[in-house]
Amino acid sequence: MAHLKAESEHGAEMSTDVVVVGAGISGLTAAYRLLQTDPTLGVIVLEGKERVGGRTVATQLKSASGQDTWDLGGQWVGSTQRHVMGLLKELGLDVYPQYTHGTKVCQLGGAHAKIGTYSSNIPSLSLLALVDLQLFMWKIDRLCQTVPAANPAACPLAAQLDSMTMETFKQQNLWTQAAKDALDVACKNNFGLECSQVSCLYYLSYAAAAGGFLPLVEASVGSAQEFKVKGGAFQLSSLLAKRIGHSKIILGDAVTHITQTDDGVELRTASHRKLSCQRVIVTCPTHLAAKIHYEPALPADRERLTQNMPMGHLIKFIVTYPTAFWREAGYSGEIVCNGGGGSPLSVTYDATTSRGNAALVGFIAGSQAGHWTVKTLEERREAVIKSLVKFLGEKAAGYLEYAEKDWSREPYSTGCPVNVMVPGMITYYHSALRRPFHRRGA
Amino acid sequence: MAHLKAESEHGAEMSTDVVVVGAGISGLTAAYRLLQTDPTLGVIVLEGKERVGGRTVATQLKSASGQDTWDLGGQWVGSTQRHVMGLLKELGLDVYPQYTHGTKVCQLGGAHAKIGTYSSNIPSLSLLALVDLQLFMWKIDRLCQTVPAANPAACPLAAQLDSMTMETFKQQNLWTQAAKDALDVACKNNFGLECSQVSCLYYLSYAAAAGGFLPLVEASVGSAQEFKVKGGAFQLSSLLAKRIGHSKIILGDAVTHITQTDDGVELRTASHRKLSCQRVIVTCPTHLAAKIHYEPALPADRERLTQNMPMGHLIKFIVTYPTAFWREAGYSGEIVCNGGGGSPLSVTYDATTSRGNAALVGFIAGSQAGHWTVKTLEERREAVIKSLVKFLGEKAAGYLEYAEKDWSREPYSTGCPVNVMVPGMITYYHSALRRPFHRRGA
Repeated sequence: MAHLKAESEHGAEMSTDVVVVGAGISGLTAAYRLLQTDPTLGVIVLEGKERVGGRTVATQLKSASGQDTWDLGGQWVGSTQRHVMGLLKELGLDVYPQYTHGTKVCQLGGAHAKIGTYSSNIPSLSLLALVDLQLFMWKIDRLCQTVPAANPAACPLAAQLDSMTMETFKQQNLWTQAAKDALDVACKNNFGLECSQVSCLYYLSYAAAAGGFLPLVEASVGSAQEFKVKGGAFQLSSLLAKRIGHSKIILGDAVTHITQTDDGVELRTASHRKLSCQRVIVTCPTHLAAKIHYEPALPADRERLTQNMPMGHLIKFIVTYPTAFWREAGYSGEIVCNGGGGSPLSVTYDATTSRGNAALVGFIAGSQAGHWTVKTLEERREAVIKSLVKFLGEKAAGYLEYAEKDWSREPYSTGCPVNVMVPGMITYYHSALRRPFHRRGA
Repeated sequence: MAHLKAESEHGAEMSTDVVVVGAGISGLTAAYRLLQTDPTLGVIVLEGKERVGGRTVATQLKSASGQDTWDLGGQWVGSTQRHVMGLLKELGLDVYPQYTHGTKVCQLGGAHAKIGTYSSNIPSLSLLALVDLQLFMWKIDRLCQTVPAANPAACPLAAQLDSMTMETFKQQNLWTQAAKDALDVACKNNFGLECSQVSCLYYLSYAAAAGGFLPLVEASVGSAQEFKVKGGAFQLSSLLAKRIGHSKIILGDAVTHITQTDDGVELRTASHRKLSCQRVIVTCPTHLAAKIHYEPALPADRERLTQNMPMGHLIKFIVTYPTAFWREAGYSGEIVCNGGGGSPLSVTYDATTSRGNAALVGFIAGSQAGHWTVKTLEERREAVIKSLVKFLGEKAAGYLEYAEKDWSREPYSTGCPVNVMVPGMITYYHSALRRPFHRRGA
């Protein structure tokens, strides 16, 4: 049970059983599950941001029926993601399928590639590129079956696959530029990073966890983009916070020091708050966990792992419309692009809400995000709308509202969607990822 | 000029012209050069450690003539390193050549490889492995000539070379296990990391800066291990600190916040000291610079670069002896090993001082350091001495003193020798490395 020596004032000392660092979905779920196990347990969640939700956040935008809610952060779930699907059900949240009917549009195969359309799961490429891509996906899926998602270091080819980048694997296994471009787009949308910046084994372990390559990248039944949450995925966090109890969540105060002794743990925060407890669960992204000062110091393997998992770069945008004009024209709203003609788009999807308010959602990802992050919001908006017009027709210019979030600029996130592992991380340090430190035996 | 509102007490506010973050050789040199340019300039150096010197540090050990001084950190300099050679001269420090005469010993080519001896610069390998290695070194040196050290992104093959690990390049260009092992040892001694953990382009840019592959890895005329500093390389730091003036250097207080406004910069430290100034020079290792909170936030490319340059892992040891028995037996003291027979050694050299006190210096590097860091000092010492006996004979057991430094455990270093770049860093973020942020135009 939490004992507040001086009620949550700055500089005050608090004592509790467990402190959870980070009020994103992981941190909130950890606190919630602890309290389910033992409602008398003292649990405090500490969060640097002024809000809960981490890399999920909601926004209200103009729509045909007035205001409606969209996610400017994580939004999709899939039926193979058992944990989050169970949590949604438990919290009374419903899902609805991602709209995927109709023609998709792509521009892949180099700067001057033609715009193509397709209806299957795979972009419309030349026959040669299609065969190339299909053989590649089969190879990935065969390899995925040898990669245990929870322990990729146990893959028989781990040493070889972790010592190369996904770019090397791509160059060794793909032959057509269009198929290479398709993989580039998939990688930058999955990780916010380019194929050259990700360990091949890490990519495979991520795909293995999703059930294979296509389930990771596409928006169909069983995929990671299968469903959206009615009312927005951000509700996961707001409802969890409500169940935990807002008095147990301290916002706007990042943990700066974690000191373990034989008797317990002492934490200090940016505003000089002191907390003592028996256990700490650090749930923030690894590159932010690296900013915390640990005493005793983290083990060398954990320290290296924590320091060296780059966070990707995504700029997410939502454009609302009076009607889903693309559906009327036979388009699904899906566009796949790799910078062709100077377009900032990496991918877009239909983002029409469960209430029927029309919108498109899209990402500027990886190196494209690096290029566009230094422009003004107006320049990005203009370029995005111009691209949407190019791919979907003139009606794309008649939008109601444009909203965006450059996750690299978000304090206590500074990137999106995930921290990845670079080559050599899994081989030498992965075993430190889940291993508790110091007070595990206490 | 520095204005101390309340003389250097904790919590006190200080005002100066320039604050230098870090009292390693870079930070001290920056402060020293600034004061040379304008002795009236207010300069404060802030350092997290309780000492100056960064990754250089001296130790006193038992020797034939009583106590003598050895470096447990950086120790070698070379004639192609113009800046540090100039600085040594300026500070009145002398150098003496690394002892390299006589037979060298190596055990490369797999776990059960035989111990070989050689007298040239290249380990004694089979003829096939020697040809393999020589062709490889020529290829590296040809490539190095296309890599501008200050701007490796301008290399014509930059995109290709930065999208692969050094391990991929090794597998594509070396064919014999012994030659591959030789490169592995070179990489882990240069960077404290394995070939799989380093961008090929970064490796080439590092070799290019050294003048080629052999100058980077060997200990001969013109190489990076050409000379040692009489009395120890640590004196660089202690003499710089003296010239700067100890009153201008604040130890044991790490910078935690750097806030830039239109009028100046405000810094906060771990012990709540506040400093205001006009300019800040951050000289600490990038992974520690990543722990500082910047306001406004660093540009996205700089943020990613700062967060994702892994620091290597070296454990350095010095073993002192009554006499340089290996010289008498015709050995140079150089041993090159890659874990064969469970040896912790990566490389050793003669470390006899300019006063003639005999010693060997060696490194446990990269993944070997990761393995040995969790053992006790006694276990490491026993394994090191056992290996030295195996390679150099029974007399190696008769040491005077064994000292070591596991740089991964050193606060405000947490690794050694350098931060490296992983694949995709140079391509997308290198231009942020030297670019001043925010107050550049002020």
